[in-house]
Amino acid sequence: MAGLVEDLTPREDALSLVSSALGFPWGIHGGDNALCVQGCRILKDIVSDEDFPPFPRSTRDGYAVLSSDCFGASAGNPAFLRLAGEVPMGVPPSFRLNAGECALIHTGGILPEGSDAVVMMEDTDSAGDWVELKNAVQKTDNTVSCGEEFSRGDVLLQAGRKIDFRTSGLLAMAGVMEAESAALRVGIISTGDEIVPPGTMPLPPGKFRDVNSALLTSLIRGEGYQVSYYGIAEDSKNLLASVLEKALGECGTVVISGGSSVSMRDHCSSILEDLPEPGLLIRGILMSPGKPTLIAGLKDEKKLVLGLPGHPFSCFLSAYTVLLPLLNAMIWGKPQGSWRKIFLPSEETVFGHSGIEEFIPCILREGRVFPYPVKSSFSKALALSDGLYRLPASQETIRSGEEAEIWLW
Amino acid sequence: MAGLVEDLTPREDALSLVSSALGFPWGIHGGDNALCVQGCRILKDIVSDEDFPPFPRSTRDGYAVLSSDCFGASAGNPAFLRLAGEVPMGVPPSFRLNAGECALIHTGGILPEGSDAVVMMEDTDSAGDWVELKNAVQKTDNTVSCGEEFSRGDVLLQAGRKIDFRTSGLLAMAGVMEAESAALRVGIISTGDEIVPPGTMPLPPGKFRDVNSALLTSLIRGEGYQVSYYGIAEDSKNLLASVLEKALGECGTVVISGGSSVSMRDHCSSILEDLPEPGLLIRGILMSPGKPTLIAGLKDEKKLVLGLPGHPFSCFLSAYTVLLPLLNAMIWGKPQGSWRKIFLPSEETVFGHSGIEEFIPCILREGRVFPYPVKSSFSKALALSDGLYRLPASQETIRSGEEAEIWLW
Repeated sequence: MAGLVEDLTPREDALSLVSSALGFPWGIHGGDNALCVQGCRILKDIVSDEDFPPFPRSTRDGYAVLSSDCFGASAGNPAFLRLAGEVPMGVPPSFRLNAGECALIHTGGILPEGSDAVVMMEDTDSAGDWVELKNAVQKTDNTVSCGEEFSRGDVLLQAGRKIDFRTSGLLAMAGVMEAESAALRVGIISTGDEIVPPGTMPLPPGKFRDVNSALLTSLIRGEGYQVSYYGIAEDSKNLLASVLEKALGECGTVVISGGSSVSMRDHCSSILEDLPEPGLLIRGILMSPGKPTLIAGLKDEKKLVLGLPGHPFSCFLSAYTVLLPLLNAMIWGKPQGSWRKIFLPSEETVFGHSGIEEFIPCILREGRVFPYPVKSSFSKALALSDGLYRLPASQETIRSGEEAEIWLW
Repeated sequence: MAGLVEDLTPREDALSLVSSALGFPWGIHGGDNALCVQGCRILKDIVSDEDFPPFPRSTRDGYAVLSSDCFGASAGNPAFLRLAGEVPMGVPPSFRLNAGECALIHTGGILPEGSDAVVMMEDTDSAGDWVELKNAVQKTDNTVSCGEEFSRGDVLLQAGRKIDFRTSGLLAMAGVMEAESAALRVGIISTGDEIVPPGTMPLPPGKFRDVNSALLTSLIRGEGYQVSYYGIAEDSKNLLASVLEKALGECGTVVISGGSSVSMRDHCSSILEDLPEPGLLIRGILMSPGKPTLIAGLKDEKKLVLGLPGHPFSCFLSAYTVLLPLLNAMIWGKPQGSWRKIFLPSEETVFGHSGIEEFIPCILREGRVFPYPVKSSFSKALALSDGLYRLPASQETIRSGEEAEIWLW
């Protein structure tokens, strides 16, 4: 324990130290996945094959015009244009506009040759073959130009993006149906004499259900990776070593969620120390909670191993702020987490300690941020909070009204 | 079209009007789901069967003490207690503490009878049978009390919560392995003569791939519901009506994503008008984008039908701010969306219009909020923004530095 405390590495230093010692990114293999696989992360930049839209199109219902034909038009001084036809949906118009002409067009319709803008329906009146335009338009108004959404060669989505509602529509627009996704599998090993499987009911005296494996599984799957569970290892160095060996044979990354007993921790750190080059790299992180985090790696075999603390909230914080960024660095080179950072004035004072990076759960109420009012209850803190206050090592307290760094889930 | 514009209903009024006209919540059936089904939403409150922890436990490595035995202890004036033993992990201690005694304890260990607090290891020194305590503790310090996480009868998770990393650990802690989840299926029908299936390559001139069905599928699945896709309906009232009938037979909610042609819109609104009681309820919403949103319902049959605009960004916004809240209201009674609302000063001026609720994409840069700088490119706006500015109908412009209402994805 003393060794751990002396060796604490600041979290961001740990991320870059591990990334460089292990030579991230590793060029992990991918698996082909249909577009509809919600939550997958794409392995390589997706590049457009085409200009989109391939023709200038209308973004409104109205009349396609040559903008110079309605220069200065207003309700008091309307322009009158001859109606040359209606643009059909789904095919290029078969006619072109001459000076002084317009064409009825619908949202998504292709602009006829000779037009360069669209006057909105509500700014017009029609009378037989003539249309009254009560508003001037500039070139390209109410249209989307050829290639405006994207052009051939444009990066549509960068490697590492997740398939979700923000990206699915874009991929469909570009006709991309399949994308190679990161096929990373993370093995989870739980340890601790007091730990019993999650479904154990009733709970025997002194036991604790395996919360960490459920939490880590959910967190890692949510990030777009696969999980294999290797059960609860008994308090024996040989047994733990053989489970780890099996897991390392089947997974790119293995997470050992920490036993509380000193002997189990000793087993874990001594097993990680025995790993081939470079072996155990980080023996504790200068953060609270989450201090007793161990990070090791096998550079040639391209394997990453983490030992996470046993307390569920510490285990979560270490996984959220260290494990997930490392997985992303391993694959895409950037130690990026999934939080959304914002700066907001805190509605209440938040007490911390200087000299260590601290994370304290926060809640949003009507768009304002408050510290989550419970001391150490894991269950309520994680389920009911909206994110974390981050207090850098240099900061002791955030005063009420002072701007705070917030990481929203 | 004129009719639509005259009948615009403010969005929040539309949500409550529909909820009350259709008698939400409907008491939708559930399906049993294993805990590990990431992204499901639980249908009923999950209530604890037990007090947790069942015994007071230590949250630190250190020594269990009776707090009054180390009253006033400090580095200069330490207290000395006799070491009575070590608390084993995973079983209740077989001994009790007498006055003047302490016991070695690890994180998660059960406090022996006679103790009420834990002194952290780093505040102690041990010498044979005696332990030197260099810090005083209060009753319950560094412990979690019996029932402190939750007690029998406590609501662990409210109906409507999603299974994700925030809730999985808590359920595992409580031994809850299965939870009934909302088994709602949403049918999606696309319309529009210009629309072709997403995989169409190359894109024929004048056509547009079916972006909206991909986007809606991803959005609805991400919310925890199932999706059935009924393809692209041709521009014929009878055909659309028969696809809708089929979809209504198989799904609790059907979404028709809007054709751009006027005739298709007319077909859609006239089909919704022909539905049984109460039929078409909302003929347009006072929001931009997303105005041409139609909402209808069948109260006796417990079915909801929406017509969404054809432009992908309008379709998305209407689904995000109207459809998803209605699905949640249908099941849990509250028209709740999935955005995270915060108030942040805008780094730049955002121009809007008064008289209509507007949504404008925003981005976060280093924790500060900016309007997303692109006019109408759907693909970039949705994939690269971090959320939306909401400008209520009463607000025209947000000045640089002024506090803005932000909805983060």
